[in-house]
Amino acid sequence: MSKVIIFGHQNPDTDTITSALVYAHLKQQLGVDAEAVRLGEVNNETAYALEKFGFEAPRFIEGVEAGTDVILVDHNEFQQSAAGIEAARILEVIDHHRVDNFQTADPLYFRAEPVGCTATILNKLFKENGVEVPANIAGLMLSAIISDTLLFKSPTCTPQDVAAGEELAKIAGVDAADYGLAMLKAGADLSDKSLED
Amino acid sequence: MSKVIIFGHQNPDTDTITSALVYAHLKQQLGVDAEAVRLGEVNNETAYALEKFGFEAPRFIEGVEAGTDVILVDHNEFQQSAAGIEAARILEVIDHHRVDNFQTADPLYFRAEPVGCTATILNKLFKENGVEVPANIAGLMLSAIISDTLLFKSPTCTPQDVAAGEELAKIAGVDAADYGLAMLKAGADLSDKSLED
Ligand SMILES: [Mn+2]
Ligand SMILES: [Mn+2]
Ligand SMILES: [Mn+2]
Ligand SMILES: [Mn+2]
Repeated sequence: MSKVIIFGHQNPDTDTITSALVYAHLKQQLGVDAEAVRLGEVNNETAYALEKFGFEAPRFIEGVEAGTDVILVDHNEFQQSAAGIEAARILEVIDHHRVDNFQTADPLYFRAEPVGCTATILNKLFKENGVEVPANIAGLMLSAIISDTLLFKSPTCTPQDVAAGEELAKIAGVDAADYGLAMLKAGADLSDKSLED
Repeated sequence: MSKVIIFGHQNPDTDTITSALVYAHLKQQLGVDAEAVRLGEVNNETAYALEKFGFEAPRFIEGVEAGTDVILVDHNEFQQSAAGIEAARILEVIDHHRVDNFQTADPLYFRAEPVGCTATILNKLFKENGVEVPANIAGLMLSAIISDTLLFKSPTCTPQDVAAGEELAKIAGVDAADYGLAMLKAGADLSDKSLED
């Protein structure tokens, strides 16, 4: 099997970056040669989460070559995706957005659910595939849920996101509220932009 | 919660008709007011399967009114779907085809997998939701798998379809090969058309 690259949307947020890393880990555990990549700069909030749980940012790519095997996370619309996506071979989509501007020539695994965060779906996929969630991977998924649901307070937050967040906080060994506020604060911190102003 | 109608594609085949009935049963067990409907005539093969396992054909509909809650099975492309589908509220899709000519305004549950039959995915959904498969429902799912995979011989048949078929035959209490050949033969039987020729 050739290598598959996994990425989220342009202008990546925490769910997009961590879901690529988390799903690449799950696919690797299942014997797939998978690599997480990113389409843009990692923001401060995401950098805080990666640092906290000991991960490097995924490799940056400008676009995808025709015929490349890809998996999309946290998006499906082509105009939010990698340059050249129309000619890539999309094997899977894991997402929580509406479906639009998306099409494939062949059947694929397309898993979208109306929940607040991609990580909530990924947490199910670990269970469905009988793969244990390591503490640092749980930390990434928790970070994504906190980010997308604004610490479980957004209108898009569902009971499934809350339950997944509680479960993952336990595995990650952090207090969701304490860690979440610190992470959101890191994202709101504009101090590193002050030199430009 | 208002009523949701569940249907497969136009020119219905056995997977389309039985998947609507089977998923309506699962949704009802989960407390949803769901009804299976159909967009066209039931063919001879499907009629044989329905008779064998004690089901009536779903109610026929000409199309869907704007704002109707719907679930699509065994298809996603709008041009294969009900008249008026663009203005319906699509809550879910359970399918095994490529994704094309499909879009929604809101997030939804979209579950497509690259397997040989919708019933193979539905069989997973019973497990994921902790709902037991009754013998007659197992018989419908088995019929769909046999029909879509031509008794496990089509190039689209996957190990998942074979495993689901074996499991469902046991629950249904039939021999897959014996029953399958009789069902396929009923579909190929043109005797009821002889008067027209
Ligand atoms: Mn996102
Ligand atoms: Mn997201
Ligand atoms: Mn069909
Ligand atoms: Mn089918």
